[in-house]
Amino acid sequence: MESTDNLNSTRDIDNLIELMAKLPGLGPRSARRAVLHLIRKRALLLTPLADVMQVVAETARECLNCGNVGTLEICDICASDKRANGELCVVEDVADLWAMERSGVFKGRYHVLGGTLSALDSIGPQELRIPKLIERVADEDITEVILALNVTIDGQTTSHYIADQLGGRVRLTTLAQGVPVGGELDYLDDGTISAALNARKDI
Amino acid sequence: MESTDNLNSTRDIDNLIELMAKLPGLGPRSARRAVLHLIRKRALLLTPLADVMQVVAETARECLNCGNVGTLEICDICASDKRANGELCVVEDVADLWAMERSGVFKGRYHVLGGTLSALDSIGPQELRIPKLIERVADEDITEVILALNVTIDGQTTSHYIADQLGGRVRLTTLAQGVPVGGELDYLDDGTISAALNARKDI
Repeated sequence: MESTDNLNSTRDIDNLIELMAKLPGLGPRSARRAVLHLIRKRALLLTPLADVMQVVAETARECLNCGNVGTLEICDICASDKRANGELCVVEDVADLWAMERSGVFKGRYHVLGGTLSALDSIGPQELRIPKLIERVADEDITEVILALNVTIDGQTTSHYIADQLGGRVRLTTLAQGVPVGGELDYLDDGTISAALNARKDI
Repeated sequence: MESTDNLNSTRDIDNLIELMAKLPGLGPRSARRAVLHLIRKRALLLTPLADVMQVVAETARECLNCGNVGTLEICDICASDKRANGELCVVEDVADLWAMERSGVFKGRYHVLGGTLSALDSIGPQELRIPKLIERVADEDITEVILALNVTIDGQTTSHYIADQLGGRVRLTTLAQGVPVGGELDYLDDGTISAALNARKDI
């Protein structure tokens, strides 16, 4: 944007484009398109977006208990007695919690770790919410911990570490591995196919 | 987001995700990722973005002369005497104007049509800024009109219409067609190759 940077009158617009380009999934070109779209749809999109961003910037916070993102000190899920069924689902981050909630199947509570253990990035248990997890298992009436971490090396390492820490105190489970619903064998990796084969069921 | 919609405390965040998902290039999933990223980088990204959006929502406007987007009644390019070299570059929309400016080669002024003629969408000359273009060619000291519309059916139809309207009054040119810089023949469409061949030059 060298040439338009010289023009003082477009500084705010250039600034907006630059900030939008920092969002995941948007680059400079799509940020420019998005900003022109916003300006064209000012009343319908730009003004409401600016307003709600202002509100979220002031009110968004992490739940002190589980790490979910919301606007309350203790999120609705942790506050709801209906969710206290003794099941605690451990996820890597808030996006995973939201994905579980969208499926609508899980009726217990969550615990967001905020990442995975990683020796390379020097992320140890203290950098994650693992001490809080152990505290919750001791304090709350937890009967089962479901480790729903991603099936990656770091995710599985973290699962093993947590299992070690909690071993014997509570029932530990993980999500089943297998063929995704709607998945075609031809497009699946070998690891998934062998996991699905090993866990095959009678029909 | 059915299940989280029930939770009043996340209404603003859900609302933000919904609005972000309306941006071109973002869907529901990438909007969720973007919002979580924004909340994580609140001081660095979310607050500045909300502020500058507010400012742009209040100040952004179209230049009355050329249709460029900025914050002034007459944009810097139209206001600058240095750009009054008699050349007027006609483009479809503001993104095209910005792309021309980034190349830094064109030293004249612009005219943004705001689209192309389209019988299907019933967009005629009056829906575009074509009357204003004819007015500018008569009033300003224009010696050459460069038709830099996209090389699509609608773009070319619009070029022909404008050429008809302005015929004889001013020199009319279009951008050269040919092989893009860095382009590989193998990946080019037949139309581009034949255009480049027909316009071949001695070396």
